[in-house]
Amino acid sequence: MTQRIHASYWLETGGDPERTAQTIAGEQSSGTFLKLANETDELKERAGARVECLEVLEKVSSPSLPGAKASSTYTRCRLELSWPIENLGPCLPSLLSTVAGNLYELQDVSGLRILDITLPDAFARAYPGPAFGVEGTRRLAGVARGPLIGTIIKPSVGLDARQTAEQVRLLVEGGIDFIKDDELQGDGPGCPFDERVAAVMRVVNDAADQTGRKAMMAFNITGDLDRMKRRHDRVRELGGTCVMVCVASVGVAGLVELRRHSTLPIHAHRAGWGYLSRSPALGWDFAAWQKIWRLAGADHLHVNGLRNKFSEPDDVVMHGARAVATPLFEHAPMATMPVFSSAQTGLQALDTFTGLGSADLICTAGGGIFGHPDGVPAGVSALRQAWDAAIAGIDLRRHAQTHGELARALSFW
Amino acid sequence: MTQRIHASYWLETGGDPERTAQTIAGEQSSGTFLKLANETDELKERAGARVECLEVLEKVSSPSLPGAKASSTYTRCRLELSWPIENLGPCLPSLLSTVAGNLYELQDVSGLRILDITLPDAFARAYPGPAFGVEGTRRLAGVARGPLIGTIIKPSVGLDARQTAEQVRLLVEGGIDFIKDDELQGDGPGCPFDERVAAVMRVVNDAADQTGRKAMMAFNITGDLDRMKRRHDRVRELGGTCVMVCVASVGVAGLVELRRHSTLPIHAHRAGWGYLSRSPALGWDFAAWQKIWRLAGADHLHVNGLRNKFSEPDDVVMHGARAVATPLFEHAPMATMPVFSSAQTGLQALDTFTGLGSADLICTAGGGIFGHPDGVPAGVSALRQAWDAAIAGIDLRRHAQTHGELARALSFW
Repeated sequence: MTQRIHASYWLETGGDPERTAQTIAGEQSSGTFLKLANETDELKERAGARVECLEVLEKVSSPSLPGAKASSTYTRCRLELSWPIENLGPCLPSLLSTVAGNLYELQDVSGLRILDITLPDAFARAYPGPAFGVEGTRRLAGVARGPLIGTIIKPSVGLDARQTAEQVRLLVEGGIDFIKDDELQGDGPGCPFDERVAAVMRVVNDAADQTGRKAMMAFNITGDLDRMKRRHDRVRELGGTCVMVCVASVGVAGLVELRRHSTLPIHAHRAGWGYLSRSPALGWDFAAWQKIWRLAGADHLHVNGLRNKFSEPDDVVMHGARAVATPLFEHAPMATMPVFSSAQTGLQALDTFTGLGSADLICTAGGGIFGHPDGVPAGVSALRQAWDAAIAGIDLRRHAQTHGELARALSFW
Repeated sequence: MTQRIHASYWLETGGDPERTAQTIAGEQSSGTFLKLANETDELKERAGARVECLEVLEKVSSPSLPGAKASSTYTRCRLELSWPIENLGPCLPSLLSTVAGNLYELQDVSGLRILDITLPDAFARAYPGPAFGVEGTRRLAGVARGPLIGTIIKPSVGLDARQTAEQVRLLVEGGIDFIKDDELQGDGPGCPFDERVAAVMRVVNDAADQTGRKAMMAFNITGDLDRMKRRHDRVRELGGTCVMVCVASVGVAGLVELRRHSTLPIHAHRAGWGYLSRSPALGWDFAAWQKIWRLAGADHLHVNGLRNKFSEPDDVVMHGARAVATPLFEHAPMATMPVFSSAQTGLQALDTFTGLGSADLICTAGGGIFGHPDGVPAGVSALRQAWDAAIAGIDLRRHAQTHGELARALSFW
């Protein structure tokens, strides 16, 4: 029996749903707008995409997206299609063209969003997934249990290498586990990459010599492939333990190739996620999208955070985060660590822990740490104490009675 | 004076437009949700994004996208921002994170679409652009003037290598200039790449030996980078003159790296464009998006076609096509050939020629060629005759009076 790729969609159509489903299946496999003489029944049976499931959800009177054929009613459905792996082989870029190629613009479609994909084992054999994942990250960061408490260098851009290193000093002296460059930081002449890594790693290494534990610093190496590789090597040479990539900006082929080269965890930032997802009638659900990057090799993946400052509601955030924590294949889980960020403090710890069912995560906070009246070390301690309480099932305010940093933090969180 | 990157947007906000513009500018440069002590006025002046222009277009009563802060009125504007090149350097992936990163999801934003970008000359020095473009493509295809008349192998998937070559034989015997694989075709076990290239190039080379002119066949090499390079080399070895890449599926870093390796024109397919563009309140205008791929090295770029079978209206198609034909930099035009496709026949020739102001393009037709009652050679001739008429300013029906293939084609187009 052939292995098949499955993809599920939210579909809105002004036409007959069954016919539209067949049109999409045809367009994305052996069919086209015209019936072709050489699209034989045998070929269609062998290479055609199959409508596995079509469930009508509701009917509405106006189309979600423009450009669709006019109709008096638009039907919203859940559609599941499948393709034989023989059409494309286990190839991530070809997978994208197949499950998310020329189908969103069909006139029969007034809304289409990919909800999830399920891939045959051939993909697990073709792609290695994350090299470090949860275990490797914990080992390198020296954090055996609980979340990695982290933060982001701010301002995002504008600091020079020396100023960046000074901020890192403050953070590592405060006992932080994880620091990342902003996604806007790269290798500009205002803060050249090599200078920044050298200055920052001097601070990180000095602190590690004293404490025996090295903070994990994710340097943003996003760029053309040769430069990403060179920057990765520089981080590695200077004793760094993580590189960061804006995966949507770099693309799948870039990440796959970097993963082959890399000997450090890859921290995947999702800058650009908004344009891929914010229209509910178009684009991608994170549950589908994150699988691409985990296969390609992301060790950490940003998932936003509960009660964030962006437009994503909590249930969507948590659905995405749980997807990242769900094994990809039965025999190849490809565990990637979800990264929570955006207006995070200790107040979200319990709900995040409960929602995810695990503390295998990175929690990055800015104001939640820097805003502490007793300084950065107290801010880091307070966030850790909030997580300790969440994991131990102790009420936050009760825990604060015996933990001063947490008590003081509750006044500004 | 520093060189600046400019980006213009269609913005919808429930808040004060000026404040929202400043929020976006801050978020995408030196600011964040909180006012930071170390974001000094000097730093902000130096590294901050600048609101160059904010023009109110209209006010509406409901938000285009969910997740925005509630308001009684939403203002739609044209916003132009600029960034100093010093923030990021001339780097395409970092450019994406900057102009199209974490801004679409801001709560102050109920709609955001990037309309155009203007890049400083530093990008023209950092990226080579297309290696072949219009001139190189014409030289390799042996088409000195007028459009390259092309088609796509159909069914998209399901034919084996021998069957594909048979279809190519029919086309090259018909005098076609250009043939492409479908974007769904790659290197699946049902039609392995090496077998397909060998079988097809035997046909293409045999025909070239007889006629002195080699049809340009764009083999879809989309995949991981090592495979794309290997497939490119295989095409080159066997005398092929073009490779095709689904650029959104591969990503920017992949295309940049392939361009460095490649000695053949790169035919860029835009599979996935629908999810980037179909919501008018989100994502990308093609005028902005195409610049990324031209800098990265696309020699040809798909632009849809007039009166196409998809949802894109004609004015949008033509706006995009003209953008592709517009020089990128004064001293580095980086000319990429627009590729027109989707339900194309000779009937669109005049409007396409008039709209673009040039015949430096590839026109791919399926049914418009295969549907000809006298077969493929007559179909190719008819399409060429229609374009000859358009370029010469002769009425199509008058031209048909002295051109039999065209006359017969008019009955089925």
